[in-house]
Amino acid sequence: MKANVEPLSKNKVKLIRSLRLKKNRDSEGLFVVEGDKMVREIISTRSDLIEFICTTTDEDFELKTYHTDYRTIKDLSTLSSPSPLLAIVKRIDLPESSDGLILALDGIQDPGNMGTIIRTADWFGVNQIICSKGTVDCYNPKVIQATMGSIFRMRIDYLNLKDYFNKTQLPIYGALLNGENMYETTLAKDAILLIGNEGSGISNELTPSINHPILIPQHGQAESLNASIATAIILAEFRR
Amino acid sequence: MKANVEPLSKNKVKLIRSLRLKKNRDSEGLFVVEGDKMVREIISTRSDLIEFICTTTDEDFELKTYHTDYRTIKDLSTLSSPSPLLAIVKRIDLPESSDGLILALDGIQDPGNMGTIIRTADWFGVNQIICSKGTVDCYNPKVIQATMGSIFRMRIDYLNLKDYFNKTQLPIYGALLNGENMYETTLAKDAILLIGNEGSGISNELTPSINHPILIPQHGQAESLNASIATAIILAEFRR
Repeated sequence: MKANVEPLSKNKVKLIRSLRLKKNRDSEGLFVVEGDKMVREIISTRSDLIEFICTTTDEDFELKTYHTDYRTIKDLSTLSSPSPLLAIVKRIDLPESSDGLILALDGIQDPGNMGTIIRTADWFGVNQIICSKGTVDCYNPKVIQATMGSIFRMRIDYLNLKDYFNKTQLPIYGALLNGENMYETTLAKDAILLIGNEGSGISNELTPSINHPILIPQHGQAESLNASIATAIILAEFRR
Repeated sequence: MKANVEPLSKNKVKLIRSLRLKKNRDSEGLFVVEGDKMVREIISTRSDLIEFICTTTDEDFELKTYHTDYRTIKDLSTLSSPSPLLAIVKRIDLPESSDGLILALDGIQDPGNMGTIIRTADWFGVNQIICSKGTVDCYNPKVIQATMGSIFRMRIDYLNLKDYFNKTQLPIYGALLNGENMYETTLAKDAILLIGNEGSGISNELTPSINHPILIPQHGQAESLNASIATAIILAEFRR
């Protein structure tokens, strides 16, 4: 065993397990990243954010590392096929921007959708997401996994969207079923794109804030699109 | 209890449970649909496909209905919040088309991605999907849930894609990292769009079949897009 490697203590196990709850993630300012690919990505790009690594492997990471057995990793993991690597990561707030394209999420519930939206926004060079308070926590383990590392490049705030919209100078685009064909709408460079909840869409409280209701033209019979899919198609058009 | 309602027998419980496995779904020609919204949609549009309904409610469905308790439904369900409605549905093969836009999937593994791809294809009026044999089964319960009913409007075949590509006259577009900017490519009306596996992309065996390698321009730092997201963005452009 290397010099900076220690056995995983019961206290650390308890800490990691406690991070399944949002209130503990908030109070500790920490979250869990799992999986070989994601843990290695953060080691290579932002190792300063890593509090410590748990592992069943014999590698030397030059970071505070706790060694444990696979049974413990399985117990701590939220994945169906747990990886031998699990990192505890410090949360940081990236700088806020007041221009560019900002994504606003009104009550996205599904962690997979949330993570995919963060990843897609990152692909399209969006650096900031604002979320209604009812939106799923972006540090939820399933969200983190679906971001594929984009969580480390995104400023994400949970706030009162109504208040935010009342103060902003940016035009607000919203995906609505009675909106204008998005291909026939001028999409501003600096703007807010508002995406609603998976089942109920954009809330009645926020609909009046939308200056530019838009829709993705439908060609078949599906009743609607998944929220992350709709976000992606509209972001692609904003960036075109 | 209504006339066409019977208590759920142990044999039916056994049948439903057996449908978790692909081989049993294949041999029985049946699959399970769960959830109030999806079960009601199929009752109202394709009740001829319903073999029987399991329910904890007291409603009269005018279809073969078995009544049971919530504990049994919970035991049978693959959802984290089981619905009181669960239908056993007959598989049908919709007609094959030899023109139009056909989606080809090379080893999509994640059931959520697969279901979302089927739903998105349906939205964009694609009626046929061909899958490599390594692609996740489209009657997997998690796939079914994610399709939100689009499974009933899609022709889906599992076949040797290489053989299919060798025989087709249609141009084959493939999403590749070294492809041409899709906005600068002419997208044919009748075509095949090939999408690769979530981690490894399009297999080496199939890459030579692609006549039109295309890519979605990247603006930020995310390494890649989720497979269902990439599919959606490209389909939107094909239909534009």
